[in-house]
Amino acid sequence: MKQKITIKAIAKELGVSNSTVSKALSDSHEISKETKDRIRAFAKYSNYKPNSLALQLRNQKTKVIGVIIPKIVHHFFSTVISGIENTATERGYNVMICFSNNSYKREVENLEVLTNGSVDGLLVSLSKETLENHESLHFQNLIENETPLVMFDRVDDRIQCDKVIVDDKGAGYKATKYLLETGCKKIGLITTPQHITVGALRRDGYERALRENGVFIDRKLIAEVDEEKVLHDEIALLFDQKIDAIFAVNEIYAAVAIRIAKEKGLRIPQDVSVIGFTDGLISEYSSPSITTIVQHGYTMGKQAAELLLDRIENKNNIKEPQTKVISSNLKVRESSL
Amino acid sequence: MKQKITIKAIAKELGVSNSTVSKALSDSHEISKETKDRIRAFAKYSNYKPNSLALQLRNQKTKVIGVIIPKIVHHFFSTVISGIENTATERGYNVMICFSNNSYKREVENLEVLTNGSVDGLLVSLSKETLENHESLHFQNLIENETPLVMFDRVDDRIQCDKVIVDDKGAGYKATKYLLETGCKKIGLITTPQHITVGALRRDGYERALRENGVFIDRKLIAEVDEEKVLHDEIALLFDQKIDAIFAVNEIYAAVAIRIAKEKGLRIPQDVSVIGFTDGLISEYSSPSITTIVQHGYTMGKQAAELLLDRIENKNNIKEPQTKVISSNLKVRESSL
Repeated sequence: MKQKITIKAIAKELGVSNSTVSKALSDSHEISKETKDRIRAFAKYSNYKPNSLALQLRNQKTKVIGVIIPKIVHHFFSTVISGIENTATERGYNVMICFSNNSYKREVENLEVLTNGSVDGLLVSLSKETLENHESLHFQNLIENETPLVMFDRVDDRIQCDKVIVDDKGAGYKATKYLLETGCKKIGLITTPQHITVGALRRDGYERALRENGVFIDRKLIAEVDEEKVLHDEIALLFDQKIDAIFAVNEIYAAVAIRIAKEKGLRIPQDVSVIGFTDGLISEYSSPSITTIVQHGYTMGKQAAELLLDRIENKNNIKEPQTKVISSNLKVRESSL
Repeated sequence: MKQKITIKAIAKELGVSNSTVSKALSDSHEISKETKDRIRAFAKYSNYKPNSLALQLRNQKTKVIGVIIPKIVHHFFSTVISGIENTATERGYNVMICFSNNSYKREVENLEVLTNGSVDGLLVSLSKETLENHESLHFQNLIENETPLVMFDRVDDRIQCDKVIVDDKGAGYKATKYLLETGCKKIGLITTPQHITVGALRRDGYERALRENGVFIDRKLIAEVDEEKVLHDEIALLFDQKIDAIFAVNEIYAAVAIRIAKEKGLRIPQDVSVIGFTDGLISEYSSPSITTIVQHGYTMGKQAAELLLDRIENKNNIKEPQTKVISSNLKVRESSL
């Protein structure tokens, strides 16, 4: 880690007393505007982080918690936020939310904005870019300042903090096992490219269920579709393989699969069973309604907020960071037997 | 308006000098902790609002804008936020969001948190409770402090600020007119109770289209359904009236209507045309896909953010508050002729 610059070093560099630097940084009336500007500019330039920030966060409670999430147009995160909001309100806290829009740069900016003395602690789900290309050092600084931090869903294992995650492998296993148990023989998988962790983990569960039941894992039955653009044609190819079931790792893939099945004159679930993931509004309201893995976003938000507030209020007797795993379950609806 | 308490009045009340009060409120090192606590507690108790807050908001730019919206699990607000986010990012600003959860009390708390020196201006969509039972005086104070404020979608006409709204009447009219033009004769309406403004306005447009076309407005063809719980049975009753079309003021109502039509063996759109509202994921991905009024939430967010940033940066030559109306359009899909 980069050496931290101290008040002493700033004072030496600028030829002023330690006390002048300290007063300038705390905006004391005793220091002239000119001197303040010079000291602050240098402190900023040399990336000075006052220890007082951590102290302030610990001692002068703002009764606000900050949340950073990758994107908003996403039913799962909406339900997580509901869980966070309700828990925070019950315990007398307000919530401020920033979106990273899956950008590392935005995430770093969000963090600066939120930790600028305005929050008592942070709940974070990492951006895709951070997970793929960056170390999460910006969060390491928080840990060193003893600012309470809880990561949820998209977490970085290298950061020592409380975490709440979903059992994605288990969920993929449950969905696939259910399809096998209801008599399906050729189960197509619609998943993300392998570098998207959630897709990879759910696929892992799918493959384990097949292996355990002595079913050959056929690459031709697996469609890897990019999260951002749903590829109708890519999914349509699966149907050429005479599949009798589909497990889709999100609900939009499931909805598109149902549309294609209908276009091909296949009946759901008599000819093809479909299981999706997330249990958003599409799964609930489309006809046929879609059998789905339920992720319990609300519970995840609630547990993450509780972990954080317990840390903020020192109610947590366990010093070591904890990881809670939210297990998912299958909600059977019309699209499967 | 309540008389504002001044530094002088606080000093007099507590028997200290004006300068001591001023220094205590700006957290100067010259003042003892005990005195600071006493002065700050009294200032808080007497609801002292430093003029410096407004000045600080105007002069010391934070490059952050605050957003307060009623709820998050709502596709329309998600798209509005995307529009706000993208515009803010392009212009070098960060966005902090708070949810009122449709509660007046939460909205007031959100406002306090966000205006505590951390934002340059605010974008607000009012909570249901505020619109129904409260004056929006908490926002009037912002105006008096010259803090830039833009209201969108759910606005209060008594507050003199920039506003961006949707043309709900026009949208209801367009949808109904389209159904009439495609040969529908008995058009059912699924709307909210009359005290929900958006429902009332969309119904107004529906009734105008019928009147203009000499069609009798039949109360039996109008179902008023509460926003929070979708009443399957209430919507099912409409079908007893031998309707050949439905205009629903949101997409969940439309999806439920389609489900009921299928249960009754009616074909969509041959027997019954359905038009919904909002253009969320359900409308796009269910089969049949749903013809819908498109509200352009993204455009609303973009325009609201632009109005706000122009005010913050004094780029707006027009002193008077402006109101922009976002017009909607009809996106024809499979559920209508």
